[in-house]
Amino acid sequence: METVGILGGTGPAGRGVALRLASAGYDVVLGSRDASRASEVATSLGSALGGEITGSTNESAAVCDTVVVATPWDSAIATVSPLREQLGGKIVISMVNALTREGRELLPLYPARGSMAAQLAFALPESRVVGAFHHLPAAQMQDLDSMLDADVLIFSDHAEALDQVVELVNAMPGLRAVAAGSMSLASPIEAFTAVCISINIRHKVHSYVKLAGLDK
Amino acid sequence: METVGILGGTGPAGRGVALRLASAGYDVVLGSRDASRASEVATSLGSALGGEITGSTNESAAVCDTVVVATPWDSAIATVSPLREQLGGKIVISMVNALTREGRELLPLYPARGSMAAQLAFALPESRVVGAFHHLPAAQMQDLDSMLDADVLIFSDHAEALDQVVELVNAMPGLRAVAAGSMSLASPIEAFTAVCISINIRHKVHSYVKLAGLDK
Repeated sequence: METVGILGGTGPAGRGVALRLASAGYDVVLGSRDASRASEVATSLGSALGGEITGSTNESAAVCDTVVVATPWDSAIATVSPLREQLGGKIVISMVNALTREGRELLPLYPARGSMAAQLAFALPESRVVGAFHHLPAAQMQDLDSMLDADVLIFSDHAEALDQVVELVNAMPGLRAVAAGSMSLASPIEAFTAVCISINIRHKVHSYVKLAGLDK
Repeated sequence: METVGILGGTGPAGRGVALRLASAGYDVVLGSRDASRASEVATSLGSALGGEITGSTNESAAVCDTVVVATPWDSAIATVSPLREQLGGKIVISMVNALTREGRELLPLYPARGSMAAQLAFALPESRVVGAFHHLPAAQMQDLDSMLDADVLIFSDHAEALDQVVELVNAMPGLRAVAAGSMSLASPIEAFTAVCISINIRHKVHSYVKLAGLDK
């Protein structure tokens, strides 16, 4: 079974993805600037999950077969740039959203290239960047008993890499992969995260995207 | 019962909204540059719906209590600008998406003010612009037997107008209103339409947005 590294994996988003990857049998390396913190988080996520979760540095996470970028948006490029060589030839999954809080709403920011996935693709020209995991509710992702049944919209300019991430996501409990299309859709998919979170703040709920009428 | 006018109401999007408004008991005036065409379409949508659908000019549609803009995006401003006075003080619902086709995908365009709703609000400073109806599948909207059960994400800077449109949408069969937030969310909500349509093209389905975990 291939291994998955998660850069900036100790935040709520990274932890949820790690837990559900390990449940699917993948060995996961949670990367962080603070390896001891990553070890603590990995331990707290538990064992007996099928795959093993270990905490380490971002450099160690980048050695894995597939690598997820789960850092805050404003440190994503600084995190991946020194790892360009290790990440070359690999699938790099961006779950990064550029968002800012304004009052009781989250609003999207539009990076110069339209999306954070496009910024990452520019910073990692030898990697195959795929976008996924943007709209997921972090609390439910971290609770395997939450009955989560969410759609993951996936985009990439690399058709084969997209197919592989579809397979990875469909193996994770509680998630259904939906191949959305090319990187041209990165901007609206990332930005829509702001809408999902704003609705949840406004209505005090933990709602998430599930497309109706999509039999797959 | 109040009346609803639909500017550019003879297209697939306008027809679906007209049909479901009339089913909810609203009298609807389908507006068009071509009033005789609008009359034909109104007749084709049928009678005995609760409310009456009549076809007429955009000028006549603009006289209604509430007005929906359902024109193609590139004629929306030209359509509403001469009607500024009639639309003053009213709720104007924008269902306009700026989209362009590229290969087998629909991609969002970003108008100068971020969204078509914002462009309309600038063109109609005396109106209260509310965004709604962006992500709906036109074919199912026009078929009252289609078992449609879709979410309508609604945004506005006018809280009371937003509440009124929530009520209007909840009265329409097959739709659930979700108050999303302010006009700051117009851009990601409009742009996400491109993702919905691209997924439907790619997978040859008629899927639509339904948020899970949102009990209202």
